[in-house]
Amino acid sequence: MENLIRFGGKFFDELEIAVYRSRDVSASVELNEISMASSRSGAVTVIRGIKDKRLGLAVIDSDEPERIREAIEQAAKMAKLNSPDENWVSLPEPEEYRRKVKPNYELKDVSPDALVEKLVRGIKLAREKDENLIVAGGEGGVGWEESRILNSHGIDISQEGGAAFFFLEFVGRKKGIVTPGIFDFDARRNLNLDVEGVVERAVQKVRWAYNVEKSRNEEVPVILGPWAIAGLLSYALFPAFSGERLIKGTTPLADRTGERIASEVLTIYDDPFHPLAIEPIIADGEGVPTRKNVLIEKGIFKSFVWDNYWGRIHGTGSTGNGKRDTGSGGVNIGFHSMVIEKGNRTLEDVVGEIKRGYLVDGFQGAHSSNPDNGNFAVTANPAFLIEDGEVKGASVFLIAGNIYDILKEASEVTREQTVMPFMTTMITPHVKFENVRIAGK
Amino acid sequence: MENLIRFGGKFFDELEIAVYRSRDVSASVELNEISMASSRSGAVTVIRGIKDKRLGLAVIDSDEPERIREAIEQAAKMAKLNSPDENWVSLPEPEEYRRKVKPNYELKDVSPDALVEKLVRGIKLAREKDENLIVAGGEGGVGWEESRILNSHGIDISQEGGAAFFFLEFVGRKKGIVTPGIFDFDARRNLNLDVEGVVERAVQKVRWAYNVEKSRNEEVPVILGPWAIAGLLSYALFPAFSGERLIKGTTPLADRTGERIASEVLTIYDDPFHPLAIEPIIADGEGVPTRKNVLIEKGIFKSFVWDNYWGRIHGTGSTGNGKRDTGSGGVNIGFHSMVIEKGNRTLEDVVGEIKRGYLVDGFQGAHSSNPDNGNFAVTANPAFLIEDGEVKGASVFLIAGNIYDILKEASEVTREQTVMPFMTTMITPHVKFENVRIAGK
Repeated sequence: MENLIRFGGKFFDELEIAVYRSRDVSASVELNEISMASSRSGAVTVIRGIKDKRLGLAVIDSDEPERIREAIEQAAKMAKLNSPDENWVSLPEPEEYRRKVKPNYELKDVSPDALVEKLVRGIKLAREKDENLIVAGGEGGVGWEESRILNSHGIDISQEGGAAFFFLEFVGRKKGIVTPGIFDFDARRNLNLDVEGVVERAVQKVRWAYNVEKSRNEEVPVILGPWAIAGLLSYALFPAFSGERLIKGTTPLADRTGERIASEVLTIYDDPFHPLAIEPIIADGEGVPTRKNVLIEKGIFKSFVWDNYWGRIHGTGSTGNGKRDTGSGGVNIGFHSMVIEKGNRTLEDVVGEIKRGYLVDGFQGAHSSNPDNGNFAVTANPAFLIEDGEVKGASVFLIAGNIYDILKEASEVTREQTVMPFMTTMITPHVKFENVRIAGK
Repeated sequence: MENLIRFGGKFFDELEIAVYRSRDVSASVELNEISMASSRSGAVTVIRGIKDKRLGLAVIDSDEPERIREAIEQAAKMAKLNSPDENWVSLPEPEEYRRKVKPNYELKDVSPDALVEKLVRGIKLAREKDENLIVAGGEGGVGWEESRILNSHGIDISQEGGAAFFFLEFVGRKKGIVTPGIFDFDARRNLNLDVEGVVERAVQKVRWAYNVEKSRNEEVPVILGPWAIAGLLSYALFPAFSGERLIKGTTPLADRTGERIASEVLTIYDDPFHPLAIEPIIADGEGVPTRKNVLIEKGIFKSFVWDNYWGRIHGTGSTGNGKRDTGSGGVNIGFHSMVIEKGNRTLEDVVGEIKRGYLVDGFQGAHSSNPDNGNFAVTANPAFLIEDGEVKGASVFLIAGNIYDILKEASEVTREQTVMPFMTTMITPHVKFENVRIAGK
């Protein structure tokens, strides 16, 4: 690899080579049966070269030196055709990394059988617990990734590791009621996926959903579960922390560092070293050391996050938030493992105190939120009515509002944290918000 | 391959092996510069085996016999764990194919350079024509696919071929006006992509969009362009032609064969052999011969389309519409090349007769249409106001309604057909609809 960096010196002032090798095995469920088992592996190399501030970017699906050499030449041709990017400063310089987390090699050569077995167990268990229930869908998967990132300034960092995930979707049919699709999931850095817990929690939600309660227009306390939180915040809030948006003027958080933007029960940070994190990487997609970046501390907005390109333009440098998109080859500002700090009491305790309110499991339509201003309009479904401290049944309703108004109404976070492996990877408790205006449906 | 079919006979009553090899090269544009050149290739093999009506499905990213053998064993293990599918009839039997269309081997080994060159030419041309214009995005790509589908009933069909596509997205900024993103595109079975035509058409639309006209609530004639038609019909109408939906009771077309569901100017058929089709395949994803399937003839609903599974359950057999999803390995009912029959007059003539109406280039939100009943609610953007036979400027408005009401209002199709390579691949003229109720925005 070092000699490929030297070879690239003929064409470029600066050069980066990023190699990713991955192996993914998975198995899926459809209508109570295993529908597919798959096993895939591959390599992708991304070349990023800069000559006189002109960028060349080439992507190939190979890690062979001969093909990488061709890709370097391809990137060089492209750089010649482009105009200089006068904003370009430079690729990252080497820095100290934290100590690597030991990978779990058990995940490197997993067979799809291991996942098929877990899914079959989940299906059997679920249908024993509730014969009116259909396992509409589900998937178990294990991903393993090895990466090496080098650049002409001397960065050379290799990492490897893997994670496993598992989810099931149930639909219950009883007395003419068909419940919405009810999900639960688990994700961790070993194969001990909590099949029993996933089934237990999802079956409980299906049981609640057999009773349908009409929703109405009202202002009530609402507890959001991990799936709902990840959906809403991934689209309405998290993009606002991007330094690129600060520079482009598309975040409502410009000039608000140090200001209160949420209630003091909320502390949110990005931390790949959190014990529950499923990808504990020490270097981001550009080889910059990752770190814990606090975004909101007790309700106060602390800071933006940066990749190398925008961080150098801004003058503060990267915060280790350069995420490589192996599809396009590009680097974008992103998060590794967003954590919402947990609280002291259980979800049960928090639910137990609510006279009338809702527990929202999932939101539909969160992707059309506007992170430029925080506005959103979502359908809460599945959602559950709470009366006198107990869940009474399932409801559907709309919430339209602004994420910054809602964040100020957060009143409690629960003790249990869940890993959400979808959308932005999150580790989050349930969060209770007061005075949420809902529109019945 | 034949001996792998024999090997599978140890485990299965019926077995299908589908092998896909692909090579994709592409180059992308962002903000007037080439942002990426990529070259990817790979192989995927899907094993589908049935034992005592129990299904096993395995997907691997390899075409090596040893790995295929393992995948057959994997599928066999899975079939054992599944329950019998009592609806299962059988895999397809061999049938006569049409003569293959000769592939264009020029597309097999294209370098990304060829696409970079076209994009650079497009960017240069566009900015010469309009200095206030930004080439916000764009892509040029060439895909080449080789497939072989075998099954234990004697089907063994190999196919190969490729296609090229090209699109650009422009944004104009002039006198405080920022236009919406304006797209144009081309797709064909050779490298002679119409760069000049794409630029010419898109620049014209940007020119129109510099003048913003307020929309209002009214009932007017509306002409839909290819992008708008493909968006709306792909989500609101085409799924209703699926035989699976007929059996599941989720199409409004059940029991309506032979009835008028559209105005007589509309004839719609799926035809991979159309001269403009970009994938002229003779066999579908299950090795069943493809054919021209007429869906709507002069406004009359003619027939549903089927893959092997649902077609055999229904008793009519497959219509050659089994599309393989190489991601999940599954086969779904889909379309190869949807054609809307063209008319006699040019778009210019049709526009020239409109006293007040709109020309809609694209719709937003079409994906949330409901094919169960045909209801949709979309935002027309980009859309252009026509007054006294001339385009006056750009407008944004909403159309909410039912696709079957709209189809009855079709009054003319233009002479020019365009290939739409996105969503459902379509070959379509512009279509004029009368009395469309729009909501101003």
